[in-house]
Amino acid sequence: MRIDIISVSPELIKSPFEHSILKRAIDKKITEIHFHNLRDYALNRYGKIDDYQFGGGAGMVLMIEPIDKCLSELFAERVYDEVIYMTPDAPTLNQQTANQLSSCQNIIIITGHYKGIDQRIRDKFVTKEISIGDYVLSGGELAAAVLCDAVIRLIPGVLGDETSALTDSFQDNLLAPPVFTRPAEYKGMKVPDILLSGNFPKIDEWRHEQAIERTKRIRPDLLNKERNREG
Amino acid sequence: MRIDIISVSPELIKSPFEHSILKRAIDKKITEIHFHNLRDYALNRYGKIDDYQFGGGAGMVLMIEPIDKCLSELFAERVYDEVIYMTPDAPTLNQQTANQLSSCQNIIIITGHYKGIDQRIRDKFVTKEISIGDYVLSGGELAAAVLCDAVIRLIPGVLGDETSALTDSFQDNLLAPPVFTRPAEYKGMKVPDILLSGNFPKIDEWRHEQAIERTKRIRPDLLNKERNREG
Repeated sequence: MRIDIISVSPELIKSPFEHSILKRAIDKKITEIHFHNLRDYALNRYGKIDDYQFGGGAGMVLMIEPIDKCLSELFAERVYDEVIYMTPDAPTLNQQTANQLSSCQNIIIITGHYKGIDQRIRDKFVTKEISIGDYVLSGGELAAAVLCDAVIRLIPGVLGDETSALTDSFQDNLLAPPVFTRPAEYKGMKVPDILLSGNFPKIDEWRHEQAIERTKRIRPDLLNKERNREG
Repeated sequence: MRIDIISVSPELIKSPFEHSILKRAIDKKITEIHFHNLRDYALNRYGKIDDYQFGGGAGMVLMIEPIDKCLSELFAERVYDEVIYMTPDAPTLNQQTANQLSSCQNIIIITGHYKGIDQRIRDKFVTKEISIGDYVLSGGELAAAVLCDAVIRLIPGVLGDETSALTDSFQDNLLAPPVFTRPAEYKGMKVPDILLSGNFPKIDEWRHEQAIERTKRIRPDLLNKERNREG
């Protein structure tokens, strides 16, 4: 998968791609990340890429022309499955969307900054708008890194152990059950006996119960989704 | 505000703190970020910090002892308002939580990796668990960076223009209205006339209508929340 990220501050998210799972996926050539600094497509030699919003109000807005220029170059080189804009006023990312995107060949991610981007970019070029949650960030860069991480780790071959992603939270609309590791007792705090029993069918049963209990307590809305899907 | 981040890979999120708004908040001494590499608290000289989970199953679990050691050092130095664990099986971050946390003095953020952390750490030390959304990441580091960004930008003095945060999405449970900037016409695409009219009461009205329309279309659940709060 090739991902092109268009940003005012691509250097802001260099480090997440230079470590851990994302680095491994890049090293294995399973994914390619290309950063495009919007200032390279600026209108003048002072690097102008934003301006005040029409109608008044605080905050700068990214202009259409630099983004149009950058997109035109990319569109001339290859076909893209999606042009994604990261913005809080969009449908929220979930594991299903991450799964779908993990089978794309080429995607572009546009990250906003300040007050966002000129609406005409969204109307004309963007094919999918994604929010990572109901909160506001100072720019779309971290949101883009989050999206890349959520998607790339699902591409076959990226995670060392294929089953690892399958037992994550949300793959079955349940939160993951609690996990414990050595030592079995630490300063008086013990691991539940069942996990030390070696009775694996019972352990699976316990984990499923715990997953349901935890989901009921913390995220009952997920259980309703599950019921609707089954029903 | 002081934020201590405990992580297996703190270098993964160095760059977001070295640019843009977060850098500015640190330079202005409005916030301090301290990274703690969990491997410095490892059990042996091979840097052991994780182990297989009891009861079997794929994925490694962070052990209690290194985290306990790191927390003990921090607790001896100052009082913390919250010990936060970033994990997908937790209540979801929203703008209200970000607002609340922005008035804290000292917080610790623990970031998991692989299959998460030993449940006893959560039971004994963690005061608040936060998910940034219904998707799984390869580690909690990016989630911690997202939380820091969402919180720090709300601390008075961080954003250049105070009103900028007040007109963001979610502060009033509505998505932000569309924004436009120069030129008024680009390749045949025009800015709505109203925004060029100079009639600011009408512009405010149009923006409010657009915000409601956009929220209805993309996130009707937010409007219901608003109604419940008013009712």
